[in-house]
Amino acid sequence: MRNLKLVIEYDGTAYAGWQTQTRSSVPAIQELLEKTLRKILHHRVDIYASGRTDAGVHALAQTANFKTVSSITTEKLKGALNALLPADIAVKRITEVPASFHSRYSAKSKTYRYTICNAPARPAIGREQMYYCYLPLDVKAMQREAACLAGRHDFSAFAASGRKSRDAVRTIKSIRVRKRRERVEIDITADGFLYNMARNIAGTLIDVGRGKLSRGQVKKILDSRDRRKAGPKAPACGLCLMEVKY
Amino acid sequence: MRNLKLVIEYDGTAYAGWQTQTRSSVPAIQELLEKTLRKILHHRVDIYASGRTDAGVHALAQTANFKTVSSITTEKLKGALNALLPADIAVKRITEVPASFHSRYSAKSKTYRYTICNAPARPAIGREQMYYCYLPLDVKAMQREAACLAGRHDFSAFAASGRKSRDAVRTIKSIRVRKRRERVEIDITADGFLYNMARNIAGTLIDVGRGKLSRGQVKKILDSRDRRKAGPKAPACGLCLMEVKY
Repeated sequence: MRNLKLVIEYDGTAYAGWQTQTRSSVPAIQELLEKTLRKILHHRVDIYASGRTDAGVHALAQTANFKTVSSITTEKLKGALNALLPADIAVKRITEVPASFHSRYSAKSKTYRYTICNAPARPAIGREQMYYCYLPLDVKAMQREAACLAGRHDFSAFAASGRKSRDAVRTIKSIRVRKRRERVEIDITADGFLYNMARNIAGTLIDVGRGKLSRGQVKKILDSRDRRKAGPKAPACGLCLMEVKY
Repeated sequence: MRNLKLVIEYDGTAYAGWQTQTRSSVPAIQELLEKTLRKILHHRVDIYASGRTDAGVHALAQTANFKTVSSITTEKLKGALNALLPADIAVKRITEVPASFHSRYSAKSKTYRYTICNAPARPAIGREQMYYCYLPLDVKAMQREAACLAGRHDFSAFAASGRKSRDAVRTIKSIRVRKRRERVEIDITADGFLYNMARNIAGTLIDVGRGKLSRGQVKKILDSRDRRKAGPKAPACGLCLMEVKY
């Protein structure tokens, strides 16, 4: 059996997320990939991603792997996939990896970017890959408050509400907020993310930028381990999985 | 009468271009803007742009102006327009300008960007704002050949085929080709553009990048003033009007 690793780019706007949602009327990306692979390889395929992205979340470089008995070359498979997949999903690279490789369990770190369009008028181009915020954001305050999140912490305060993780300790290797023209970008690299963690951190930092949270409050929220203290979950469209490192 | 200048961003994918095309079943951007302004201002509006962008061409900052007797504030008008216009058209700024101002005739220079996704696999995110080229482009050759286009020249060789301009002399103030990750960007600033000139230059430089045109050939094409010598017109989706200076 060969183990193949895919790097996949997708515009998540039209999808129910990575994973098949039984109750959803819109397709999931995993489902589409498995169906397409089955068409090409003539056998059932189970594909595993580095993590499940939510409905509407994008990926510049999601990674996934699956096993196959086929001897098709990686170039040929990539060509066939890109010919059959819809325009908003593209397979960027395929490589053969050792049998022990697993997209999720072998991952060392992941980087997410949250993009905010912060301008006096809404965007038209690229509008589905940003969250639009009319109110001017104080980027310096966001940078200052974000700093305390770097390092090894219990991120319960930024986990999905209603879910209790047995182990909510993760390490944020870097967190950076920067402004480029009309865009404010929050880049977070961590060894792992709790469910909704990236969006909850983004929502909290947006509250900081809007002046709803003052100096030192993000640290207090983190220490509280209480989801109710943090800001709201930022909308899915602003989030993009940028890189997975192994 | 007040003269109002608008800066407009649009994703041109769904439109017949700036100007109303009587034979087209898809709307033109000008038409939509005039209709929307009429709804808000309760009088007929004629809006003039810096230039007509083709079907499928985008704008980050198209400028247009129109006259009105209304005393509505520019902020209020901007808010009303952005509430009523479709999501792929946004009015970024409105300012009151002297009666003599005309978006087209007062323009000193315009900058267009042509974006090529040059990678072994097609893009998914932002795919409607790029032209995808699978073959690796020699960016250095493109930069070298582009240089001869800067300055004051007769650009007949890059004008729309079948059209004879009485005066095809324009000044390209700057032309720059650069590679940023998977993207190759061609930025052209000129005092004016002949019809299809930006796309014909882009198509010719893509031919250079692909090795179909060799050293010195772009200069020969320019000097020939013969449209048949230049490369093909590059697809509309890659072109974006970036800035108009007054």
